[in-house]
Amino acid sequence: MSDIVTAGMVVIGDEILSGRTKDKNVGHLADMLTAVGIDLKQVRIVPDEQADIVEAVNALRARFDYVFTTGGIGPTHDDITADTIAAAFGVPCDYHPDAYPLLEAHYAARGIEFTEARKRMARTPQGASLIDNPVSVAPGFNIGNVYVMAGIPSVFQAMLDNVIPTLRTGAKLLSGSLICTLGEGTIGGPLGEIQKAFPETIIGSYPRFETSGPYTEIVVRSRSAEQRDAALAAVKEMLDSLGNGG
Amino acid sequence: MSDIVTAGMVVIGDEILSGRTKDKNVGHLADMLTAVGIDLKQVRIVPDEQADIVEAVNALRARFDYVFTTGGIGPTHDDITADTIAAAFGVPCDYHPDAYPLLEAHYAARGIEFTEARKRMARTPQGASLIDNPVSVAPGFNIGNVYVMAGIPSVFQAMLDNVIPTLRTGAKLLSGSLICTLGEGTIGGPLGEIQKAFPETIIGSYPRFETSGPYTEIVVRSRSAEQRDAALAAVKEMLDSLGNGG
Repeated sequence: MSDIVTAGMVVIGDEILSGRTKDKNVGHLADMLTAVGIDLKQVRIVPDEQADIVEAVNALRARFDYVFTTGGIGPTHDDITADTIAAAFGVPCDYHPDAYPLLEAHYAARGIEFTEARKRMARTPQGASLIDNPVSVAPGFNIGNVYVMAGIPSVFQAMLDNVIPTLRTGAKLLSGSLICTLGEGTIGGPLGEIQKAFPETIIGSYPRFETSGPYTEIVVRSRSAEQRDAALAAVKEMLDSLGNGG
Repeated sequence: MSDIVTAGMVVIGDEILSGRTKDKNVGHLADMLTAVGIDLKQVRIVPDEQADIVEAVNALRARFDYVFTTGGIGPTHDDITADTIAAAFGVPCDYHPDAYPLLEAHYAARGIEFTEARKRMARTPQGASLIDNPVSVAPGFNIGNVYVMAGIPSVFQAMLDNVIPTLRTGAKLLSGSLICTLGEGTIGGPLGEIQKAFPETIIGSYPRFETSGPYTEIVVRSRSAEQRDAALAAVKEMLDSLGNGG
């Protein structure tokens, strides 16, 4: 179906895998993509190592409409994302004709030396276009269907705000939910039957453990509002028949 | 090197990819593994779909010493992890001889019907051993080098506490860090030289944007305390020479 648009994400970061930093970008990207009707289908978190990054980016860009990466685009030796994406696409990595003067002017205006390290942030794979960075100037970039952004959440979010309006979006997954005080073991059987009866919906069941007793949220998602509403009505009827809230 | 032990993680969850739930298990597993000397090398977040789960689990279990999964082991139709792991290993999935009576007795003692849905939680791939669940009884399981645990953070954490002491652990990565008020563009060049001079260390640079000015944390990790300390000393000397805090 042409109105389904898919995405993958590659988080580049030793610091996430070591536990030193807790990722905040997966949840933000998921929220933003869901809001515009793009389905995030897979996330991979990989170390700052070229072979791992190339493998993940190439696997996901072949499979999904868009790939978003976070991390590794700063000025230090451990920031290898630009070189790595160039390797994934089989193109050279060099100073971008717009990024270099942008950064040069930025540092000149502030009287800061434009060091070799800072110049590294002007490097992109050949043919990439820039993603504006209103927070800290050094840009992200886009090549093919891959969008390369910063790992620092405030910078990632600002870059993503510039990218989202340029993307092709699909039919949104519409969701609705019901909360019940019945356990999943009680509702599980009939809920499975409802899922079978409404194949155009995705019905999820999310339990919590509360000291007051069982508490389960049932979420129905569908690209059709009618199907979603019909499935939700069937769920409500089932819950009522089992004595929810009675 | 035999004293390096590696791990992968597969997070099974439509609700993470849609943004509805924010994952808390990656960071917890990363912390726990780092603490005992196991290197988390890759995380994949995949939807509740058998083909995606099988592909991720088989890719990671072939590559790393251990694989940990979270999510999809409850009683409802969307909990397909047990069947899926069985498919990944090419074995049948059926009631586990210990899990079935465990759950049967648990529900009998509470006067709760042992429904077909609840019986689903006793199913494991043939040959699996159970992982105790002190929070909500329904167990996780281990087959081969794969450890299958709950997605609810409190349950996942309790299961993991039971798993960690059974794992082979390696030499811990020892870390040390220095904070400076110099920007990455200033320290990036010399820091890269220090990384080259200390190949047995992994030197990471983590900037933050503070309104007071640049703020960068430099983290040195190594399995050798001597190498770590020597690299940290070199970093400190470099920072002092550039006027940090002066």
